[in-house]
Amino acid sequence: MNDAPVQTTNYVADPGRIADLARRIREGELSPADLVRGCLDRMKVTEPVVEAWREVCADTVLAEAEQRAKEVEDGLVRGPLHGIPVGIKDIIDVAGVPTRCNSLSRADAAPATADAEIVSALRAAGAVILGKTHTTEFAYFDPSPARNPHDIEHTPGGSSSGSAAAVASGTVPAALGTQTMASLNRPAAYCGIAAFKPSTQLLSTFGIEPLSTLYDTVGFYGWSVADAVAIFDTVCPAHARLGREELRDGPLTVVVLQDPFIDEADEDVKQAVDRVAGCVADAGHSVESRDTNLSFAHLYDLQVLTMEYEIGRIQRRLLDEPEGRVGAKLSETIRRGSKIDDAAYLDGRRALDDARSKFFGALEGVDAFLWPATPKTAPRGIAWTGEPKFISPWTALGGPVVTMPAGAGADGLPIGCLVTGAPGSDFRFGRIACRIAEAAEAHGTAS
Amino acid sequence: MNDAPVQTTNYVADPGRIADLARRIREGELSPADLVRGCLDRMKVTEPVVEAWREVCADTVLAEAEQRAKEVEDGLVRGPLHGIPVGIKDIIDVAGVPTRCNSLSRADAAPATADAEIVSALRAAGAVILGKTHTTEFAYFDPSPARNPHDIEHTPGGSSSGSAAAVASGTVPAALGTQTMASLNRPAAYCGIAAFKPSTQLLSTFGIEPLSTLYDTVGFYGWSVADAVAIFDTVCPAHARLGREELRDGPLTVVVLQDPFIDEADEDVKQAVDRVAGCVADAGHSVESRDTNLSFAHLYDLQVLTMEYEIGRIQRRLLDEPEGRVGAKLSETIRRGSKIDDAAYLDGRRALDDARSKFFGALEGVDAFLWPATPKTAPRGIAWTGEPKFISPWTALGGPVVTMPAGAGADGLPIGCLVTGAPGSDFRFGRIACRIAEAAEAHGTAS
Repeated sequence: MNDAPVQTTNYVADPGRIADLARRIREGELSPADLVRGCLDRMKVTEPVVEAWREVCADTVLAEAEQRAKEVEDGLVRGPLHGIPVGIKDIIDVAGVPTRCNSLSRADAAPATADAEIVSALRAAGAVILGKTHTTEFAYFDPSPARNPHDIEHTPGGSSSGSAAAVASGTVPAALGTQTMASLNRPAAYCGIAAFKPSTQLLSTFGIEPLSTLYDTVGFYGWSVADAVAIFDTVCPAHARLGREELRDGPLTVVVLQDPFIDEADEDVKQAVDRVAGCVADAGHSVESRDTNLSFAHLYDLQVLTMEYEIGRIQRRLLDEPEGRVGAKLSETIRRGSKIDDAAYLDGRRALDDARSKFFGALEGVDAFLWPATPKTAPRGIAWTGEPKFISPWTALGGPVVTMPAGAGADGLPIGCLVTGAPGSDFRFGRIACRIAEAAEAHGTAS
Repeated sequence: MNDAPVQTTNYVADPGRIADLARRIREGELSPADLVRGCLDRMKVTEPVVEAWREVCADTVLAEAEQRAKEVEDGLVRGPLHGIPVGIKDIIDVAGVPTRCNSLSRADAAPATADAEIVSALRAAGAVILGKTHTTEFAYFDPSPARNPHDIEHTPGGSSSGSAAAVASGTVPAALGTQTMASLNRPAAYCGIAAFKPSTQLLSTFGIEPLSTLYDTVGFYGWSVADAVAIFDTVCPAHARLGREELRDGPLTVVVLQDPFIDEADEDVKQAVDRVAGCVADAGHSVESRDTNLSFAHLYDLQVLTMEYEIGRIQRRLLDEPEGRVGAKLSETIRRGSKIDDAAYLDGRRALDDARSKFFGALEGVDAFLWPATPKTAPRGIAWTGEPKFISPWTALGGPVVTMPAGAGADGLPIGCLVTGAPGSDFRFGRIACRIAEAAEAHGTAS
């Protein structure tokens, strides 16, 4: 096995900083239409191999970009994403485009008549919709054709495979993904980019194909943590923002959490998290190591149980599809989940509620936790989208989860470090995550 | 016109306090199955006339209630609603039951395979699902058969007609409704019960038929404000609860807001709000009258514009239904809304964002606002579900909106007073609304 990435298999390119692009657009230095054309040009190089995009809305996005350009000339800037192209995971509705969920069962899907609420919100902030990105089938484990831009022999992770690969290959500066288990944070780790998963149920999921609604959460990809946070900020609802913008200037309290559950991480992954912790401490923040007060292995089991119960009901109709139209992994989980009984599910929800209270109740005053995103770097091949277990317990805990690029592993592939916070702290936590990323970058840890 | 309610047209009965019923269940004094049987018995009296219920799940709810009873015997109490029957507006999915939306277009709807997330959350808190309540068609203005229990010649309001009438007629202590414009708070006002509408997008809308997802919000009916708040508390997400449970004991700051928009209210409605304000002041709270810093008439126009744009897209497929299968009011709005262009909608969202910031930014430190729920008491007849315009601007502002019963009008029908707060303050605001309701009740204003 040749682990060293070689030039011919590497399609990574920086798509640019969102804040910088947006400023240049506002100031008339950059035309939104030219920015879109740049994305389309980049795709000519990458897409034949990376296959991040399911459908590019080349005509409509250029018209939208021209409209945004005209608005700038007229003195109108809709919001912080004015003229910024965004990729949308293909389980999220975009008006005029079918939502195909990478499933044969959706081959004849009609175009959506309305945008998902999150897409409307992005448009209200000025974004233009570049197209739909590949997803694993219905955002579960049956893979998409997308490849990892760092090494096309490796998976970009799933389920938001295309969105992560689209940003990492430099074809778009911002993209939407979703997370039910690990589907947003894992592809970011494998592709060496940043992701921001907000608190569960903080943002509307209207117009997003459901899988397990106790967890389904839309989130954001950008090249850097600041980019991912910048997209979230534009759609953060008023109720999650008001009165919570304050963040003291002093040192942060950051906890490197210890649990036997992550002992299986590769040495290079462990070292990457330690390096981040060291940089954060060097920058003057308080960094301490603490044991968890609950079992992350148990949290993982609870997350899987409650998720599979819901998948078994929410997507049960897929079992009526003709043989071969729905992927084997999803079909099997629907069958397994539909056999979990109501009492076990209700008991699971109760245990999760108790775990959340116990965990965050004991850890008030902590600004962020550090934790490895995955046990290893991206697996070879695209059939298996990689291990979700390190991320799933954080999804279960329900708070914001950032993936921060944290350098490369022994095989040269990216390693991601999770930076996590308490449910509902999202707006403030965005600032915290940026400060941690700054500390890591200032000391050369984040790539 | 005979405005005085007479015994033969009045079907009002108190279904009991949720906290009290739940306590008696927990302590083994009341069997959940007996409570359900009481509800079914009451329906025998009321339902032939009030028609609040679309479908009663008599078999399944008794099995669920027996299960909850057995759990109590085994020492397991799932949550604060353990054994409490709840009615679900028939645009919200309940597993095993078709979601018919009071529309001929849904006459052949298959049973839902999964619960809406809010229904799952209620079950996790111990609730049992009594059945589906009547809604106006797709929660818009084409009426349902439900009647006002205070006088069956009058509308219960819409769109959550059946849920409000079900609680007011004593057939269930708790029910779910939804609000896009005024659909939760108005029926509460007309039926003389309480409602709690949380902040927009605070709770998951998965499994709820959408109308305009910028606004669609699930909310709660109970006999008293304490009841409505008690249901909300059980499903308030961790991210909206953590660290915000504190409420100082001292006097509240309550503002009676003045705007020319409400000048058209009937004298008895104005007097009812003034009486509430007087009681709150008498109880030692600070009550002041203030002019609004923006135009509620303009807010109302913005809410209608953005809502109709979304209805025109989200429900556009209904225009493909055969003639007569979709109500005239909804069809007309879909057609009108689909003609509103994207730029007008984006401009509207922007203006609403600005209005929200301006309004709540200038009014920090205010605990609650008082405002008339409707210009008049419930109109005669059931064809017109009543005026939404006093409530719609508050829906647009996005914070929690409580309807508090505030006595009767000159015609003997109920008057509702809105108690409103800032977006995201919901958990704390629930406590505030209860204190205001206590003050009003202690002085005999609320019925």
